[in-house]
Amino acid sequence: MAASCDGDRWFQLYIVERQAAWDMIRRALETGYSTLVVTVDVAVNGLRERDIRNGFGMPLRYTPRILLDGALHPHWTLNLLRHGMPQLANFVTARSRDAHSQAALLKRQMDASFDWDALRQIRDLWPRRLLVKGLLNPQDASRAIALGADGVIVSNHGGRQLDSAPSPMTVLDAMVAAAKGAPVLVDSGFRRGADVVKALAMGASAILIGRPLLYGMAAAGGDGVDAVIAILRDEVDRTLAQIGCPEIGLLSRDFIMPAAPI
Amino acid sequence: MAASCDGDRWFQLYIVERQAAWDMIRRALETGYSTLVVTVDVAVNGLRERDIRNGFGMPLRYTPRILLDGALHPHWTLNLLRHGMPQLANFVTARSRDAHSQAALLKRQMDASFDWDALRQIRDLWPRRLLVKGLLNPQDASRAIALGADGVIVSNHGGRQLDSAPSPMTVLDAMVAAAKGAPVLVDSGFRRGADVVKALAMGASAILIGRPLLYGMAAAGGDGVDAVIAILRDEVDRTLAQIGCPEIGLLSRDFIMPAAPI
Amino acid sequence: MAASCDGDRWFQLYIVERQAAWDMIRRALETGYSTLVVTVDVAVNGLRERDIRNGFGMPLRYTPRILLDGALHPHWTLNLLRHGMPQLANFVTARSRDAHSQAALLKRQMDASFDWDALRQIRDLWPRRLLVKGLLNPQDASRAIALGADGVIVSNHGGRQLDSAPSPMTVLDAMVAAAKGAPVLVDSGFRRGADVVKALAMGASAILIGRPLLYGMAAAGGDGVDAVIAILRDEVDRTLAQIGCPEIGLLSRDFIMPAAPI
Amino acid sequence: MAASCDGDRWFQLYIVERQAAWDMIRRALETGYSTLVVTVDVAVNGLRERDIRNGFGMPLRYTPRILLDGALHPHWTLNLLRHGMPQLANFVTARSRDAHSQAALLKRQMDASFDWDALRQIRDLWPRRLLVKGLLNPQDASRAIALGADGVIVSNHGGRQLDSAPSPMTVLDAMVAAAKGAPVLVDSGFRRGADVVKALAMGASAILIGRPLLYGMAAAGGDGVDAVIAILRDEVDRTLAQIGCPEIGLLSRDFIMPAAPI
Ligand SMILES: Cc1cc2nc3c(=O)[nH]c(=O)nc-3n(C[C@H](O)[C@H](O)[C@H](O)COP(=O)(O)O)c2cc1C
Ligand SMILES: Cc1cc2nc3c(=O)[nH]c(=O)nc-3n(C[C@H](O)[C@H](O)[C@H](O)COP(=O)(O)O)c2cc1C
Ligand SMILES: Cc1cc2nc3c(=O)[nH]c(=O)nc-3n(C[C@H](O)[C@H](O)[C@H](O)COP(=O)(O)O)c2cc1C
Ligand SMILES: Cc1cc2nc3c(=O)[nH]c(=O)nc-3n(C[C@H](O)[C@H](O)[C@H](O)COP(=O)(O)O)c2cc1C
Repeated sequence: MAASCDGDRWFQLYIVERQAAWDMIRRALETGYSTLVVTVDVAVNGLRERDIRNGFGMPLRYTPRILLDGALHPHWTLNLLRHGMPQLANFVTARSRDAHSQAALLKRQMDASFDWDALRQIRDLWPRRLLVKGLLNPQDASRAIALGADGVIVSNHGGRQLDSAPSPMTVLDAMVAAAKGAPVLVDSGFRRGADVVKALAMGASAILIGRPLLYGMAAAGGDGVDAVIAILRDEVDRTLAQIGCPEIGLLSRDFIMPAAPI
Repeated sequence: MAASCDGDRWFQLYIVERQAAWDMIRRALETGYSTLVVTVDVAVNGLRERDIRNGFGMPLRYTPRILLDGALHPHWTLNLLRHGMPQLANFVTARSRDAHSQAALLKRQMDASFDWDALRQIRDLWPRRLLVKGLLNPQDASRAIALGADGVIVSNHGGRQLDSAPSPMTVLDAMVAAAKGAPVLVDSGFRRGADVVKALAMGASAILIGRPLLYGMAAAGGDGVDAVIAILRDEVDRTLAQIGCPEIGLLSRDFIMPAAPI
Repeated sequence: MAASCDGDRWFQLYIVERQAAWDMIRRALETGYSTLVVTVDVAVNGLRERDIRNGFGMPLRYTPRILLDGALHPHWTLNLLRHGMPQLANFVTARSRDAHSQAALLKRQMDASFDWDALRQIRDLWPRRLLVKGLLNPQDASRAIALGADGVIVSNHGGRQLDSAPSPMTVLDAMVAAAKGAPVLVDSGFRRGADVVKALAMGASAILIGRPLLYGMAAAGGDGVDAVIAILRDEVDRTLAQIGCPEIGLLSRDFIMPAAPI
Repeated sequence: MAASCDGDRWFQLYIVERQAAWDMIRRALETGYSTLVVTVDVAVNGLRERDIRNGFGMPLRYTPRILLDGALHPHWTLNLLRHGMPQLANFVTARSRDAHSQAALLKRQMDASFDWDALRQIRDLWPRRLLVKGLLNPQDASRAIALGADGVIVSNHGGRQLDSAPSPMTVLDAMVAAAKGAPVLVDSGFRRGADVVKALAMGASAILIGRPLLYGMAAAGGDGVDAVIAILRDEVDRTLAQIGCPEIGLLSRDFIMPAAPI
């Protein structure tokens, strides 16, 4: 994968089994990835009830309900059929080629023993940029940085795993403070340019976009992804202009006004 | 009842008439219950308006509306018909066997003179574990403990009696503080594993589940109850994993993040 | 009117024209009213838009919409037809007998020059109990008491005049403090026994009920009013029992629990 | 335009291109405008998505949806057809007569280099009353006053450009404080007399009304505008009476009661 893409390549890792994980890290190193993202927010997969109720799993089963959705959104169905099911790239590479065995793999409990010591070992294995993804607690951010992480990604996994998790925006301030200057990236729920501008103004180094890109891809393939990015970029520009900020690098907390009672 | 169940047996008591109550306590003592739960939250039965409107009372009257519900949920009806109406076990034992006379009994005002002195007398009568259920006020918690109760159950009776009563979760902190180390159990409205985890993290000793178990029982008898418990247990496990807490005993306030403004 | 009723008789007064008002006060004195209530909240009648839109005024015009309401609520219509339109008793007495001329009277601007000096003059004219109704501001309460009023009625006129007016419950604390021991009555929006219990626990001397009684009257005449009162009384009793307050006179702020964040 | 109107004439200016702006200022000076309003809130036009979805742009395209609206609101359509499309007067004067080229002009990016220095130059060009419109930040208000503006207009452009912009009412207090006695006007979302009264009581010098007047005009031309103004004036009078404020000039913060928790 990495070899065929341009620019800066990131490798995202879940620790399902430690030994398999260390193997993947070494392969990522060999194939030239610049950044390793270790996600720590779903040590155990959340039970996604909607999926269960709709008969959606992996591999996809064609229940009447899903076919109906297809009928209503012909573009999506067409693309799913043409491009095949999306696959979890790493697992495909590392283990097997068909979606069925991936699902089996994911269904096994992820390694519940993942802990700070595992992070330390990863730091030893991986000399390049290391980000810890899925943190929401300032103390965890401090600790990850102290253990040698180059930055953190504040994320509640798009609210898809633990519905009681706080929204990244509500903890961003504390996370930026805890990171003491190390980069703080953030994702989950960013949908408009104004969302992006707010997070940057509060001190985030970058914002990651999840489902909007997937939706764009499902609807229109690569062109759809490009369209989503273009919309967001345009919205960011307009928002900057409207708040009177001449360039994105000048965003700061001065542009944020706390909600004030009358 | 008690003799035929395994493990730790609890006896729940309302003080409708003091003399009848003291009799029941003595019988509970003889038949080997380990714990006496004195409920103090409904000295007078709340007027349950939905029941009135739907023609639901005790004994159950078969109005068209209820039959319709039955038609829509055939399992429930089937089980109600097969197992008969749920009965208030204590009153059945102590007084009469048919639901009609129980309802008459419940309709009489409960002993409005129940007070702290009554609790003292109960403490004298009952040497084993004594819990006071239905407290929502920290001062009451302190007083119950001071009078010798072994613990309290924070409860608003599932919100079924006084709709203005505070939610147990909003007073749990203060109740735990007031109990000065004595066990604080809590119930009312716990539906998901994450609810349970939150209460434990805030210092509750245990969470009681009410209607979910009744619903399980009504829908599928004992199997339904087992299924509800299994679902909750699974949700608790997943939630623990997702917040990175390796075992339930390590839950603490550190896992609770107060809602923060941006 | 006063002569034919039992017990304590109250006289409510708007100052539309001062001279007419002074006349009414003298007549109330002669006919034996015990209490004069001067309402100060609607110096100018609010424009009631719903009335306008529905074609409802005084006298009542029978538009298709109202007849439809009648068809859906046959009891109400029946009673309105049988008992005739409710009338504003004082104006009927003082001026004219038909609803039409009353409406004309009300449409004229009320005396915009009503001020604290007018209250002083009323105090001189009226030696018996004097209450000022419609206050929502603690400073006004202090001033009314200082000018000799025997108490105040906290009211936003049931929210029917100025939709931006605060709810009496949100200012009750400050009003009770400002009244320094003088009676503070309250109305507007009290619908359930628990509402009444809350206000009493916060220090109100009495709660006035407006529309619920009118609705009872419209639906079933005097019996309807009795029914509404019986429902409220029953709810108050149950609420007292459920919060463990043995009698209404023992209500205090100890029974109020401020909404607490988790 | 200015020459044909009575009274105090205001000239509103966007800085699209500086040179064109300076030209307009000089023309406004020659034709006798008393007040120059420089709007700084939409350096770049917000993307108005509803317009896009409805097929509404400038010039207006007659899509089925709009015709349907017309069918439901025949008066509006009639007037649009009779009076033609509303035009942006300044641009018409300065550049061209047809709506099409105006739209082209507006679609070009407004001068993103507008800054405090531009305001200083405007202050030098324009000796009469100068107001800066579109400020929401107290620091900007201080700075505009310090640069010689005679006052500011707190505005979020009616919420039509940046949906994340704060409501003027939530920042009015801070803006009045920052203006240190200079006039603070306010607009956006004022719909009722009570809204106007609240802003005046909080220290605003005047309230500007946007869309309500446009709606009146679209519905009934000049008469519609008069009707909207009459409704607002009437509502202001009634609100003053209901809060017991004898005249508008006596409004003050004493009439504002902060939302209080029970
Ligand atoms: C279908 C799907 C699969 C995902 N898989 C992973 C994953 O394997 N590893 C990971 O760190 N995050 C994963 N995420 C979470 C995203 O990386 C990201 O945190 C989240 O989607 C951001 O929220 P948003 O979708 O609201 O933008 C996944 C998200 C989606 C929607
Ligand atoms: C049908 C029913 C009967 C109940 N009877 C009693 C009772 O006799 N004694 C008691 O202490 N609580 C009683 N409760 C309250 C429960 O013990 C428990 O406090 C409550 O149901 C917890 O809330 P939940 O149902 O939301 O979990 C009853 C609840 C229900 C639903
Ligand atoms: C139809 C109607 C007429 C009223 N007329 C008067 C009145 O003449 N004088 C007065 O002080 N209050 C008047 N009120 C207000 C009531 O006295 C009382 O403040 C209000 O109804 C209490 O609110 P509630 O209806 O929500 O209980 C009137 C209320 C209604 C509904
Ligand atoms: C159709 C339309 C065009 C507008 N054009 C301008 C403009 O050219 N310059 C400007 O300063 N404000 C403009 N505004 C904003 C108004 O001046 C004013 O700030 C806003 O409408 C006030 O909010 P309101 O409509 O909720 O009362 C425009 C508003 C509307 C609705």
